[in-house]
Amino acid sequence: MNTQTQTNEEAIKQNMAAFANAWNIHDAQAFAALFAEEGDFINFMGGWLQGRSEIERAHAEIFATVMRQSHITVIDTRVKFIKPDVAVVHAVWILDGQITPDGKEVPQRKGRFTVVTTQGDGNWQIVALQNTEIVTLPNFKP
Amino acid sequence: MNTQTQTNEEAIKQNMAAFANAWNIHDAQAFAALFAEEGDFINFMGGWLQGRSEIERAHAEIFATVMRQSHITVIDTRVKFIKPDVAVVHAVWILDGQITPDGKEVPQRKGRFTVVTTQGDGNWQIVALQNTEIVTLPNFKP
Repeated sequence: MNTQTQTNEEAIKQNMAAFANAWNIHDAQAFAALFAEEGDFINFMGGWLQGRSEIERAHAEIFATVMRQSHITVIDTRVKFIKPDVAVVHAVWILDGQITPDGKEVPQRKGRFTVVTTQGDGNWQIVALQNTEIVTLPNFKP
Repeated sequence: MNTQTQTNEEAIKQNMAAFANAWNIHDAQAFAALFAEEGDFINFMGGWLQGRSEIERAHAEIFATVMRQSHITVIDTRVKFIKPDVAVVHAVWILDGQITPDGKEVPQRKGRFTVVTTQGDGNWQIVALQNTEIVTLPNFKP
């Protein structure tokens, strides 16, 4: 791995850390700012948020309600470069502290995402992210 | 959109049609052949299939069992080029005919996927795909 690739991998991992940090301070604007203007976000329910402003709006809503005490940890981040300035990231998230709309605790959740990120104007931005909850065997659905 | 981009978009859409066709004839080898050797597949349960041979093995298993009578339709395919030879595809799938391990009919399912595809040696290949089931409001989980 050459120095430029290492630098880029570090920058992408810092962005994933910024993603978790924005979530953990419940800052939808900072969260959405990690996405490209026309970025796409497929959420864990298969819903499609199209563009940074929609991503911000949807997260502002949950950060004010069911996610207002939540904490996310992103682990097992793997970066694969498709081009020097295009990478696909796989990572696992662990979410604690979610509540239901009527205030009950939700058990810890885990999921996995695929993130497509590109470099432009010196920064790495997320152009597409898809999120899927990790379902363990007791809930197995064939 | 220039002619080359149109040609590439057509080739990618043909690959998505080939994806559905391989599923519908329950041919795991043809299905896996659409992926790059090192392609990544995150399934609807958040499981990670790493590489073409693992993708083939997992699909051979379900095509022989719960998916052996299933039929998939891929709709609403949208292709966005990140580079002339790198595109992100969003699409919806509709699955009919799945059965449970003990032979009961599973209701129609729908999902959405993000597909990262690159061109090399004249062909477009899937380098990453993530799948998420579309959950409708009766099952809403905050």
